[in-house]
Amino acid sequence: MKLGDLGEFGLISRIAANVAGGNGVITGIGDDAAVTALTPGMQLLTSTDMLLEDVHFRLSWHDPYRLGRKSLAVNISDIAAMGGIPLWATLSLAVPANLPLDFLDEFTRGFLSMAREHGVTLIGGDTCSSRNGLIISVTIMGEQHPELIVRRSGARSGDEIWVTGTLGDAAQGLALLEGTITPSRQGRGGVSGEACDAAEQFLLSRLLDPTPRAAAGRSLAEAGLVSAMIDISDGLVADFEHIAELSGVGGTIRLDAVPLSPAFRSVASVLPTSPYQHALTGGEDYELAFTAPPANHEKIVKLMKKCGIDGVPVGIVTSLPGVRVVAPDGTEYIPQSHGFTHFT
Amino acid sequence: MKLGDLGEFGLISRIAANVAGGNGVITGIGDDAAVTALTPGMQLLTSTDMLLEDVHFRLSWHDPYRLGRKSLAVNISDIAAMGGIPLWATLSLAVPANLPLDFLDEFTRGFLSMAREHGVTLIGGDTCSSRNGLIISVTIMGEQHPELIVRRSGARSGDEIWVTGTLGDAAQGLALLEGTITPSRQGRGGVSGEACDAAEQFLLSRLLDPTPRAAAGRSLAEAGLVSAMIDISDGLVADFEHIAELSGVGGTIRLDAVPLSPAFRSVASVLPTSPYQHALTGGEDYELAFTAPPANHEKIVKLMKKCGIDGVPVGIVTSLPGVRVVAPDGTEYIPQSHGFTHFT
Repeated sequence: MKLGDLGEFGLISRIAANVAGGNGVITGIGDDAAVTALTPGMQLLTSTDMLLEDVHFRLSWHDPYRLGRKSLAVNISDIAAMGGIPLWATLSLAVPANLPLDFLDEFTRGFLSMAREHGVTLIGGDTCSSRNGLIISVTIMGEQHPELIVRRSGARSGDEIWVTGTLGDAAQGLALLEGTITPSRQGRGGVSGEACDAAEQFLLSRLLDPTPRAAAGRSLAEAGLVSAMIDISDGLVADFEHIAELSGVGGTIRLDAVPLSPAFRSVASVLPTSPYQHALTGGEDYELAFTAPPANHEKIVKLMKKCGIDGVPVGIVTSLPGVRVVAPDGTEYIPQSHGFTHFT
Repeated sequence: MKLGDLGEFGLISRIAANVAGGNGVITGIGDDAAVTALTPGMQLLTSTDMLLEDVHFRLSWHDPYRLGRKSLAVNISDIAAMGGIPLWATLSLAVPANLPLDFLDEFTRGFLSMAREHGVTLIGGDTCSSRNGLIISVTIMGEQHPELIVRRSGARSGDEIWVTGTLGDAAQGLALLEGTITPSRQGRGGVSGEACDAAEQFLLSRLLDPTPRAAAGRSLAEAGLVSAMIDISDGLVADFEHIAELSGVGGTIRLDAVPLSPAFRSVASVLPTSPYQHALTGGEDYELAFTAPPANHEKIVKLMKKCGIDGVPVGIVTSLPGVRVVAPDGTEYIPQSHGFTHFT
């Protein structure tokens, strides 16, 4: 069957058929608006992201299943950065007439697998035909108690700056796809070709199938341990700059503290250039950056372990504005760019 | 200044600068997610629509101010169809690099004027560059008491079928723009050229700057007068079919009861074809279709007057499935198509 045979309402029914009911969903897909109920006493968290073919993804790189997962993951990541509990999502798709129905089925399967993993219910959306590539627009809603919600604006001078996971993997995965870096398939630096492939697969999966740090973000917020939080979508420097600006502070990031994955190091080891550009300013890691009083240090380490993710301090919030990155020898490291931004 | 000089975050700041706080908005634009509070006891209503250049609009037809208004209006219309109170919206824009900044300023001005008229606050969104035309994605949220929310599924056999306003105006406006109908500028049927122009302007404004029936939808719901409701975006027949299907009923629509505007009649009078195709299956009127027990008839007429809009019964809900349109002589009128649908 083709999309043209199925039609707009057929496509909606096909997607809706795979959606189960969820927390607080009174009326899901199929009416003029979805009806949902927040937990009494909770506030609503709302975020939205748009993904465009040949801007945010390429069909030659992104298989539909992982593209579906990522479309929701980047939104869940925003709820995580507020310390919230993700609940509901809408999915709007503008679809080129020649896109195979199999692609849409796999995309939906991926989207709904990510939804299930995080307790999110698809409650509505919009579908239309596109003349120019696939367009995906997702809005996510979540909830949290007002006093537990973590904003970008709460960082205080003297707080430690933390990040979850490892940084730069997604940027290195993108560089691999773009051919900017081409590590030898023959092995390098004593590393076998097989180990190289495993490293590359890891970096690619970090780009193509990112894991939103939902449990970490929510746990940190509910434990009341953090003062400000953001998800790292444009690179650590650019995203921490948002925290600094909204909190009226600055920060110093220690270059040697930035967490790098073994795969990142293995690929970086054969490159002539500094790996830190990717780690500091590469987008799409979807890790969390947060700030917390030093007194909370041990509790945070323990909580992150409980969430199955590493969390490491990478610097200190300063009263002086501006974000500086400092090398072990005390010199300042100046990234070539601060992070990804559209239009410029 | 150009969009490229302004950059992504400059564009967001430029839009945010014109947004005032609103009902229940705790944190608006500028964090990972917006934070809002529903009125205690209310449920959340969510709907979303995507508008694509050269699919839903053309820049040669749609001036940016009215395009901004319409982008939000079509979403407010969905909340109205549930009997809800519109509250918050997110706006995602994918913008071609060569789009003048003036265009975006006017678009935003239009969007925010519609927002103000309906008490809606812009709480977030996403902006990115587009390689292929302007893309607009809006999600709207509203609220209502659970027992007052009106769904598509509540129509009962014997209920009257009502519509607000007049039908087919937007479709006739589109036909004027497309050149499918070209009424003479010299006047027709004794009507002066000036009156013709006024009629055409009315029809065009119905297409380009539709008025969502927010007060009517909310008032009908809060008065508990209606059993089912939908907004007419794809044509009365297609949209009433949704009510019929979800309610497990059918309906008979009386052709001579379908409300037509003087402008519609004036343009239709010079056409050789039946005007009812536009009135019954033309999209984008954004009027409301609803069903109600006959006992509520007088109260509905009065309430509609109070809302400053006409509401007229156009048919009867039947236990027999299927939607039939009947001419005054008792014969069945078969529309050429049931309404607009994507992909087919």
